[in-house]
Amino acid sequence: MEKDSKTINVGEVKTKEDFILDEVKGESLKSSRTTVAILGSGDYSRSLAERLVRSGFPVAVGSRDPDRNRRLFPQGADVTTRRAAVSRADLVFVAVHRENYPDLRPDQDALAGKILIDVSNNTKIQKGESNAEYLAKLFPSSTVVKAFNVVSAWTLSSGLFGGSKEVLVSSDDADARQTVMQLAKDMGFAPVDYGSLMAAREIEAIPLRLLPSWHLALKMSFGVFVFLLLYSLYRGIVFKAIVGDPNIPFQHIPLHYVNRTMAGTAITILCFVYFPGVLAFFLQLYNGTKYKRFPNWLDKWLLARKQLGLLCLFVASIHACLSVLDFGPASYGRHYDKTTVTSEGDVVFGKMRWSGETFLLFGTLAFFLMVVLGVTSIPSVTNAMNWREFTFVQAKLGWVVLIFATTHMVIYGAEIFILPGLFASYTIAGFQITLILPAILILLKVVTLLPCISSRVDRIRRGWEAKVPGRAEAPNNGYQGDEMTAL
Amino acid sequence: MEKDSKTINVGEVKTKEDFILDEVKGESLKSSRTTVAILGSGDYSRSLAERLVRSGFPVAVGSRDPDRNRRLFPQGADVTTRRAAVSRADLVFVAVHRENYPDLRPDQDALAGKILIDVSNNTKIQKGESNAEYLAKLFPSSTVVKAFNVVSAWTLSSGLFGGSKEVLVSSDDADARQTVMQLAKDMGFAPVDYGSLMAAREIEAIPLRLLPSWHLALKMSFGVFVFLLLYSLYRGIVFKAIVGDPNIPFQHIPLHYVNRTMAGTAITILCFVYFPGVLAFFLQLYNGTKYKRFPNWLDKWLLARKQLGLLCLFVASIHACLSVLDFGPASYGRHYDKTTVTSEGDVVFGKMRWSGETFLLFGTLAFFLMVVLGVTSIPSVTNAMNWREFTFVQAKLGWVVLIFATTHMVIYGAEIFILPGLFASYTIAGFQITLILPAILILLKVVTLLPCISSRVDRIRRGWEAKVPGRAEAPNNGYQGDEMTAL
Amino acid sequence: MEKDSKTINVGEVKTKEDFILDEVKGESLKSSRTTVAILGSGDYSRSLAERLVRSGFPVAVGSRDPDRNRRLFPQGADVTTRRAAVSRADLVFVAVHRENYPDLRPDQDALAGKILIDVSNNTKIQKGESNAEYLAKLFPSSTVVKAFNVVSAWTLSSGLFGGSKEVLVSSDDADARQTVMQLAKDMGFAPVDYGSLMAAREIEAIPLRLLPSWHLALKMSFGVFVFLLLYSLYRGIVFKAIVGDPNIPFQHIPLHYVNRTMAGTAITILCFVYFPGVLAFFLQLYNGTKYKRFPNWLDKWLLARKQLGLLCLFVASIHACLSVLDFGPASYGRHYDKTTVTSEGDVVFGKMRWSGETFLLFGTLAFFLMVVLGVTSIPSVTNAMNWREFTFVQAKLGWVVLIFATTHMVIYGAEIFILPGLFASYTIAGFQITLILPAILILLKVVTLLPCISSRVDRIRRGWEAKVPGRAEAPNNGYQGDEMTAL
Repeated sequence: MEKDSKTINVGEVKTKEDFILDEVKGESLKSSRTTVAILGSGDYSRSLAERLVRSGFPVAVGSRDPDRNRRLFPQGADVTTRRAAVSRADLVFVAVHRENYPDLRPDQDALAGKILIDVSNNTKIQKGESNAEYLAKLFPSSTVVKAFNVVSAWTLSSGLFGGSKEVLVSSDDADARQTVMQLAKDMGFAPVDYGSLMAAREIEAIPLRLLPSWHLALKMSFGVFVFLLLYSLYRGIVFKAIVGDPNIPFQHIPLHYVNRTMAGTAITILCFVYFPGVLAFFLQLYNGTKYKRFPNWLDKWLLARKQLGLLCLFVASIHACLSVLDFGPASYGRHYDKTTVTSEGDVVFGKMRWSGETFLLFGTLAFFLMVVLGVTSIPSVTNAMNWREFTFVQAKLGWVVLIFATTHMVIYGAEIFILPGLFASYTIAGFQITLILPAILILLKVVTLLPCISSRVDRIRRGWEAKVPGRAEAPNNGYQGDEMTAL
Repeated sequence: MEKDSKTINVGEVKTKEDFILDEVKGESLKSSRTTVAILGSGDYSRSLAERLVRSGFPVAVGSRDPDRNRRLFPQGADVTTRRAAVSRADLVFVAVHRENYPDLRPDQDALAGKILIDVSNNTKIQKGESNAEYLAKLFPSSTVVKAFNVVSAWTLSSGLFGGSKEVLVSSDDADARQTVMQLAKDMGFAPVDYGSLMAAREIEAIPLRLLPSWHLALKMSFGVFVFLLLYSLYRGIVFKAIVGDPNIPFQHIPLHYVNRTMAGTAITILCFVYFPGVLAFFLQLYNGTKYKRFPNWLDKWLLARKQLGLLCLFVASIHACLSVLDFGPASYGRHYDKTTVTSEGDVVFGKMRWSGETFLLFGTLAFFLMVVLGVTSIPSVTNAMNWREFTFVQAKLGWVVLIFATTHMVIYGAEIFILPGLFASYTIAGFQITLILPAILILLKVVTLLPCISSRVDRIRRGWEAKVPGRAEAPNNGYQGDEMTAL
Repeated sequence: MEKDSKTINVGEVKTKEDFILDEVKGESLKSSRTTVAILGSGDYSRSLAERLVRSGFPVAVGSRDPDRNRRLFPQGADVTTRRAAVSRADLVFVAVHRENYPDLRPDQDALAGKILIDVSNNTKIQKGESNAEYLAKLFPSSTVVKAFNVVSAWTLSSGLFGGSKEVLVSSDDADARQTVMQLAKDMGFAPVDYGSLMAAREIEAIPLRLLPSWHLALKMSFGVFVFLLLYSLYRGIVFKAIVGDPNIPFQHIPLHYVNRTMAGTAITILCFVYFPGVLAFFLQLYNGTKYKRFPNWLDKWLLARKQLGLLCLFVASIHACLSVLDFGPASYGRHYDKTTVTSEGDVVFGKMRWSGETFLLFGTLAFFLMVVLGVTSIPSVTNAMNWREFTFVQAKLGWVVLIFATTHMVIYGAEIFILPGLFASYTIAGFQITLILPAILILLKVVTLLPCISSRVDRIRRGWEAKVPGRAEAPNNGYQGDEMTAL
C-alpha cells in the first residue's frame, strides 16, 4: 500500500489567504452544522477530524483510549469513548481496519439507525464482497455508505488536492447517499453518486489503479522504440563492427541515432492512431453489418487511440528538439550546398537546398498541427467544443498531420533510395521501414474514400445490413428510421 | 448532414475499468429507475436504448415491426408495439424524423399526459418554428421537451464524449424540464436549462455550427499571410525573374520565404489583437460618451480578439521553429562575424554579433510570454483566476509581448535600412511593411497613456458624458454614483 | 482602485450566435422570473440591469432622479423612485457606495423584510467590520447577503468572463443565501456558499489580491536569476575589464550570458521545488514525531512548490530556446570535432562529439518530461487523475527530471574542470556553483531512501512517536490504528 504521507505532495496549492477563507467559511457555517462522529484514532481518523473541524463541523471522536489519544486531535474535536461519540451524531465515520470491524459489535445497539461511512481501502483487489458490504452484514440495523476511500489522509488534513476532487458515494439507501454527498460538498469535495452498495467493489478497486488507460499505448510505443533503436544500431554500428569497418560512429548514438529512432517511433505511433479506424471500416464492409462486435483486440486498440496520440506528440516533440540540435551541414550535408573557402580565406557558407527546406517545412507544419490536436485533448478545451467541432479537428486535422509527416519523411529520404550504402548490411534503411506503415495506411484510407465503397459502408453504419443466408431480414422501416441520427 | 458514425471518434477514452464502473453503477441504480420509452427503431433509437440500459433504466421500445427489429436492440430493452411501449412509461423519446411525426397521431391518446422528448436535428437551419414546437402543436395534450439533439448516436452507444457533455433542455413546462434534466444527469450528461420551448429554434441550430467564433479571425489571418507571402515572393523571386537576374532563390521559398511570411503574419495578427481596444478608446473620446454603440465591424473585431491571439501564438510558434532551423551564418551572415581559415587549415567560426544575440533574445522572450498568455486561455486555468488577475495577465503582459516583438523586429532589420538592395523592385522590404502597424499601434497606445487624455476617457468610462447640444444632461448623482464599480 | 472598464478585456469570447442563444434563453425564461430591484444609478447599477434584463428578469431601478437617468438604462428596466422600485421586488441590489448607505434610511420601512444584496468593494483591505455587516447594522429588519462584488461591471454588461465565473455568497440567513445563489445561477454565474455574513470580510478582500500564491516563488526565482547573472557577468566581463583583458565579450551578453544564467536559474529553481520535502523529512526524523508543526518559513516554502515548478518550466523553456540558437561550433567548439578545409577548398564540417550529443540528449529528455509535469498541473488534467496517479507523476517523474538535468550539466562541464581558465577571477565557474545545490539535494534524497532511515520516518508518518522524556506515550492502539490510511 502506497503510504500517502511518504511524499508531501504539491497538488493544488492554496495560499495563506485561501486557508483563512476556508477557516472563515468553516467558522461561519458552524451553527448550521450537525455533529459528526469518527470511530478510530489512527492517522486517517485524525485527518478526517481536522478537515471536519475546519469545515465547521462539531466532531466527536470515539477511541478505545480517549485520554491517551486526545492530544493528537485538533482542538475542535471532542475525544471520548466510542459509545459516547456515536450517541452524539447521526453520521459515523468508521475509520478502522476491516479486520477490526467485528470489534465494534459490542456497540451495535448504539450504532443502530445511524449512517456508517466506510472509508476503507485494500492493498489489493478483493475477490468477493467489498469491505462496505461486509460492514453492512455485521451491522444490519445501521445504514452503510461507501465514501471517501479515494481521498488520502494528506488531502484531508492539508486541504490540498493531489488529483481529482471527486468522492464516490454508494449505498443501498438513497437518502443516506444524499446526506453523505451533502457532507462531502460541505467538506469541499465533489461527490458522485454511484448507486447501491454493490458498486462498492469497484469503488474500492479505483485507488489501486495507476493510469490503466495508458498501459496498452505505452507498451506499443515502447515496443516500437526498442525495435527501431536496435534495428538502427545494428545497421549503423553492429554491422560495421562485424565487417571490421574502422569508422564506427559510437559518438553519434546519443543524439543522431536516438533522434532517428524517435522520428521513426513518432510516425509509427501516429499510424497506430489511425489504423484501427480504417480496420474497423473494412471489417464492417466485410461483415456487411455494424452489429457484429469487433474482435477484442480491435476494441482495445480503438480505446487506446487518445493515449497513442498523446504519446506520439511527446515523442515527436523530442524528435523535433533533437533534430534542431543535430541538423546542420555536419550531419546532414546532402541537404546543403557545399561550403567553400575564398582565396582570401573567408568561408562562404552553403545554404540549404530545396530538399532540406521543404522537408523541414512539412515537418514543422505537421508538428504544430499535432500540437493543436493535443491542445484540444485538454479536458476543459474538449468540453468547450460541440461534437461536430471536436470530430472535425481530431479526424480531419489528424489526417492532414499524417500526410504532412509522411511527405516530410519522403522528401527527407528522396535521395537515399539511390545512395550507395542503401543496402549495406543486407537490410533496408530504418527510415524506409518506417515508411511502410504510413504508405499502407494512406492507401487504405484512399480506398475508403472511393464512392462505391464509402457509400456502402455509410449505409451499413446507418443500420443497413447485407442479406446473408440465415440472417433475419433488415428492418422494414429501413432507410427512413435509419436516417434518424443526431448530427 | 454529417454522418456521426462515419469516423469512429477518439473522444474521451474510457478504460475497461471505467466501463465496468459504468455498468456496475447502472446495475446498482436499477431498482430506483423508472421505465423510459423510445419511439422509433432506427440507429439513434438503438443508441439511446443502449445508453439507457447501461445507466440502469428499464427500456420499452415502440416499433411498427417489433418482431423484425428486436434482435438489433440490447437485451435490457423490451421491443414491443408503440402503444404498449408508451403505456409503460411517463417519459417518451420521440426518435423518428420530423416528417414522421404525423404518423404518431393514431397513438395520441396513449401519449396524452406523457413527456415527449424531441431529439431531432435538421440538415440546415430552419426558418420558422422548430421541430419541437411542431411536435407540440401535433400533440397538445402531451408535454414536449427539447433535449439530446446535440448528442450523437455514437456518444450514446460508446459512452465516450467527443466534445462537450452538455445537453441543452428546453420546454414550456418547468417540471418536465427538471425531470428530463435529471434523466440526462443519470445518463452521465451535464444538462443545461434553456427555458421555454421557444429556445428550441436556437438549440436546433447549434449542431450545425462549426467553430463560429473563429471565422473572422481565421479569415483575417489567412488574408494577411497570403498578402505577405505574395509580396515577399514578388520582391524576392518574381521581380528578379522580370529583370532577368540569374540568381533566383527558388530553393529558399519553402523555409526562408515562408518563415519570413510567418514572422510578418505573426506580428500583424498581434497588432490586430490590440488595435480594436485602442480604436474603441479613441471612439469613446471622440463621442464623449460610452453609451453610443460601437460600429458593427468594431464589435465583431473586439469579439475576435481571443481567437486572433491564439492564431498569433500558432503562427509565431511555426516562425520560431522555422527560424531555429534556418538561422545561421549561411542565411543570416550579417548577424555573424566572419568565419575564417587559419594557415593550418582549421576553420575558426565567427561568433554571433551583438545585433544577432539581442534580437534573438527579444524574440525568445516575446514568444514565451505569449505562451503564458496562451496557457491562461485554457478554460480551466481562466476559471482559476479572479478578474483582476486575468486582466493583468492579458492586458499588461500582452503589451509587453507586443513591445518585445517589435524590438525584436527593429533590431533584426537595423542594418537593412542602409542595405543597397533595400529599394530594389521599387518596393520596401517586407519586414518594413510589417513594422508600420506596430509602430502606429504603439504610438496610439502612448497617446492613450497621456494624463490629460487618459483621465478624460476614465471619466467617460465611469459614465460621465460630454455636454453635447441636444443631448440630455449627464446624471446628477454624477460622480458619486459613477464611482460605484466593482474592482 | 483598478478601473474595470479601462481596458476592454478579451475574456471568454462569445459569438453572435452565443449572444442570440443567451437572449433567447432570457426571453424564454421571462415568465418564470420574479422582479429584481436595484438601488443606485451609477455604472455598476446599469451593468447589473443589463445583465438581469438579458437573463429574463423584470428590473426596477430606484434612482433619486429617475427622469434624468432613465435613458441610460436598457429598455427592459423600469427606472423609478427608490421607494417604488423596492416595493415591487423581494430582492434588492444595493448598488451605492458604503458612504451612501445611511442615505437609504428614509426608505427603511420599505426595505423591511426584503433581501438586500451588498455588492460593494473597497480600495484597500478593511480593518474591522465589512461593508455588508455595516449595511446589516443599518437595516436590522432586512436580510443582508454579500454577493457579486467579485464580478466586474464589464463582465455583467458584456456577458464575457475575464477570469473565474464564481460568485461568493454569504449571509446569516441560509434561505436568503439559497435565493441569491439561485439568482446568480440564473444570471449565468457559478455561486459558492460562504456561510454566514462574517465571511464578508474575507470576500471583500479577494478582489484586492493579485496572484498571491505566486509572490514567494517569483521573489525566489528573480533573486536567483539576478545573483547568477551578476556572478556570471563579473567573471566573464567585469573581471576582464579589471585586469585589462582586451577581449571583453560584451557582444555575447544578450544571448550567451543570459542563456547560461537561465540555465543556472532553472536548475536552482528545480532544486527549490524538491528541497522542502527533503527538509521536512529530516525534520520529522529529528523531532521523532509528525505532530510538531513545521517552522513558518518551511510551511510557506512547501506551499510554493507548484508555482516554483511552473516558473522552472518557464525559465527552462527560454534556456532551451536560447541554447538551440546559440549552440554550435562557434560558441561551443569543445563539443565538436575540428572543422577542416580540404585541399580543393571544400569545408568538411566536424561532427558533434560524444560529450555534446549526450548532454544535449539528457537536457532534451529532462525538458520534455518537465513539460509533462506542467501539463498535469492544468486544473482540468489534474482533476482527471486519482491521487495515486497524480503523486506518481509529480514525485517520481519529478525526481527523474532532476537527475537528468543534473546529468545534463555534469556532462556539459566535464572537461571544464581541467580547463585553464577555470579559476580565473578567483571564483569558480558559474555552472559549478549551480551544481552545488543539485548535488546536495540528490545526496540527501539518497539518504532518505536508506532502509533504516526510511522505515523509521515511515512509522513517524503513520503516527508513531519516538519516546521523549516528558512527552506522553504513543497511543496504545498503536500500530493497528495507525495503519488505517487511505492509499
